[in-house]
Amino acid sequence: MNRRRLVVVGADGAGMSAAHQALRVSRSRGVDLEVIVFEKTGHTSYSACGIPYWMAGDVESADALVARTAGEHRSMGVDLRMHHEVMALDLASGKVEVRDLEESRTCTVGFDDLMLATGAEPVLPDWARGVPGALPVKTLDDGYAWRTLLENKPTSALVVGGGFIGVETAETFARLGVATTLVTRGEEPMSSSFDPHMAALVRKGLEQAGVEVVTGVEVNALGSLGPSPAGAGAANGTRDDATQPGVRVACAGGAEYEAEVVALGIGVRPRVRLAMEAGLPIGRHGGLVPDEQQRVQDGVWAAGDCCEVYNRTLRSHWFVPLGTHANKAGRVAGTVIGGGTASFPGIVGTAITRAGRAEVARTGVLRKWLPQMGLNEDDVAVVTVDSTTASGYMPEADPITVCVVGEKGIGRLLSCQIVGGRGAGKRIDTAATAMWAGLRVDEVAMLDLAYAPPFSPVWDPVQIACRKLADRL
Amino acid sequence: MNRRRLVVVGADGAGMSAAHQALRVSRSRGVDLEVIVFEKTGHTSYSACGIPYWMAGDVESADALVARTAGEHRSMGVDLRMHHEVMALDLASGKVEVRDLEESRTCTVGFDDLMLATGAEPVLPDWARGVPGALPVKTLDDGYAWRTLLENKPTSALVVGGGFIGVETAETFARLGVATTLVTRGEEPMSSSFDPHMAALVRKGLEQAGVEVVTGVEVNALGSLGPSPAGAGAANGTRDDATQPGVRVACAGGAEYEAEVVALGIGVRPRVRLAMEAGLPIGRHGGLVPDEQQRVQDGVWAAGDCCEVYNRTLRSHWFVPLGTHANKAGRVAGTVIGGGTASFPGIVGTAITRAGRAEVARTGVLRKWLPQMGLNEDDVAVVTVDSTTASGYMPEADPITVCVVGEKGIGRLLSCQIVGGRGAGKRIDTAATAMWAGLRVDEVAMLDLAYAPPFSPVWDPVQIACRKLADRL
Repeated sequence: MNRRRLVVVGADGAGMSAAHQALRVSRSRGVDLEVIVFEKTGHTSYSACGIPYWMAGDVESADALVARTAGEHRSMGVDLRMHHEVMALDLASGKVEVRDLEESRTCTVGFDDLMLATGAEPVLPDWARGVPGALPVKTLDDGYAWRTLLENKPTSALVVGGGFIGVETAETFARLGVATTLVTRGEEPMSSSFDPHMAALVRKGLEQAGVEVVTGVEVNALGSLGPSPAGAGAANGTRDDATQPGVRVACAGGAEYEAEVVALGIGVRPRVRLAMEAGLPIGRHGGLVPDEQQRVQDGVWAAGDCCEVYNRTLRSHWFVPLGTHANKAGRVAGTVIGGGTASFPGIVGTAITRAGRAEVARTGVLRKWLPQMGLNEDDVAVVTVDSTTASGYMPEADPITVCVVGEKGIGRLLSCQIVGGRGAGKRIDTAATAMWAGLRVDEVAMLDLAYAPPFSPVWDPVQIACRKLADRL
Repeated sequence: MNRRRLVVVGADGAGMSAAHQALRVSRSRGVDLEVIVFEKTGHTSYSACGIPYWMAGDVESADALVARTAGEHRSMGVDLRMHHEVMALDLASGKVEVRDLEESRTCTVGFDDLMLATGAEPVLPDWARGVPGALPVKTLDDGYAWRTLLENKPTSALVVGGGFIGVETAETFARLGVATTLVTRGEEPMSSSFDPHMAALVRKGLEQAGVEVVTGVEVNALGSLGPSPAGAGAANGTRDDATQPGVRVACAGGAEYEAEVVALGIGVRPRVRLAMEAGLPIGRHGGLVPDEQQRVQDGVWAAGDCCEVYNRTLRSHWFVPLGTHANKAGRVAGTVIGGGTASFPGIVGTAITRAGRAEVARTGVLRKWLPQMGLNEDDVAVVTVDSTTASGYMPEADPITVCVVGEKGIGRLLSCQIVGGRGAGKRIDTAATAMWAGLRVDEVAMLDLAYAPPFSPVWDPVQIACRKLADRL
């Protein structure tokens, strides 16, 4: 029997899910598969989503964020090579050029199957680079740098960007007692994930946590506030980066802000340089566009944040860099590479986070995306309801606001957005499951959801919203 | 235009939902509908499910359990007559015989449509009646009696019955610091709702809350421990019921227990005397069996705990007395009576409660019900997984155990049961929605559920269980 070889580029969620699953499935079929994974950094399989919570001190050490160490991966049969950067792909002849960064050697490795799991990289315009005290919140190395910055107990912080990373980082700073300002070019924080009136509730959650929110302002320059006080670092025996002098943030309209530290959450984009140089097609949102089996072309596979994902409701691809999709899609790729059958069925756009004490969650399409679906405001009905997370008379009852959008005529659920107290957020899963299955709004209203006073009103808030929406459709 | 009249028997969830919805829909269609509701007690629209929490002091007063007062119902146009008991139905001539309990007068009222919403009554064998200190936990009047009993700070309590009411009442007693024993004839508490290994976790939750659990024992007699100490009540100026002497509980095997108070949670059954006497057909589980529009026969409707409900998975009717079904089915009946279109699509058997600090939830069929579906153990696969409610490294992470059962061949999800810490229970809604929509187990594993470290591992525990189950199917 011939030994086949799978080469995986990138050892985070998608890559390692694919690697292990390919091994598992091929072994169960008696196929001899060698799996080599190249990872350019010194980190593998870590939770990037956990970094804000590590910064906040919820998580004691970076080790806790690592799902599996390199040694654990190897003991399970994966030939994992850390500090190895894949420099180029030769798809025609089935080879990759790999640089061993520690030994400064380059070699060529052949493959039968190639899996691209190169992830995403933070968007960092030139003006955002190289200013001490201003950093993204993306990688484990960013996390280490942030932990060092935060050890010096800065009294002020500015967050650039109102997306998920920006909101989570602002919440972290506020919880640490740092005077925090979040600056976003959107009309509200998270306005690329929530319709305006729900995004306003996200802002309220941040403000109640003590975050000052500045909207409609685009940052376009960062500057250092001046040199470190001479010798201060050495005198105190602290590191140099402990004495960064603070950051000046300049905005397009002329406004300026100063803060001791600045977190950059401007966005991320698929890391596809290798793929582009190898001539692989890139999608509308800048990512690879694999098919349902995660195949980019014969023998070439991709999953995770370097890819776009299919949105079942939009019926088109979208860039949604999220660990949960990476793990699932990686597993699908691994199953197929290993000789099994699997497909990634697409997403509906579900996401959740906290904005202060508010749980905020969303699934489906924003109203501003309707034209992409050939719809306009007249084709939909929108209902927003205020309810409680538990029966109103219970001490567990927290406020919850649910907004649902449905399509007239066919009555399908297009969107659900939730902002509320404890127990509010994960209710989005009901809407996500319903949308995924294509249920109509009136069907969602009649679902058999769990009711008991500590957990829900007699009609779950998602159902109250859908019941009222069904009346309007 | 002729005025039509709807007579509703029973002013709780199902009856009042039907009354208001019938008014609303008929008005929107320009139909002149008179709605008269007869309620034999002095209470309307209250949350029976909230009674254990009222007993525990979570809820300050019974008023909080009342969704709408009689006055509020009347101001919305419903002719609500409290303390009026319907004594007999004359379906052939469209009349009910009603007794005004306060005025001791009987009269006859005609109807065009009749809605039966008579609810359920606790199962109380002869041996369980008339023993001071031993009471069910069903009605608002039971709740008042319990509040009085608990004001005397009993030091010991015994709960007869391991169903939802028994478990909730035991939790209440334990939280009040009363030494509590729960006695159930099942092999575990809630063994009629959970498969044995999950029911064992329910027991563990109760035991960790300080409840002693005695299983496999059937109570068959209650007795008073002797007369009240002479004059004690009068001397202290307290009421007589404050001095009940305690209760002896005798079991079929000869075991005996003593406790100051005894809660009877032996079960409830549909209250269908009126319907039976009028010759209406009764189902296998003792309830009325309305069609999808909640119609029992032409012009006669029913909803709520006096009915059986259609279980979509079992494809047969079942007795599931639960406020959430009552409200939905009542609303469907009201819509149809009012001239609109609606149907009650059936349930999948979802339920949730707390057993101590453990959240326990279930949906779908128990393995012991498989023969009813023409299936046996060889036709299904079962997977039980232990995970966490949040990413394992987060302080929010509590343990969660998920058990899923799937049908071989077609791969459909038959059951999900969950026991775990905070945030575990309502995850059942994902499984309930998926089962309702008929999703396969492998589809559930690939749903787009909400992920962020404070809320979920990267694979939601329900999906981890379904992913492993899919591998087995």
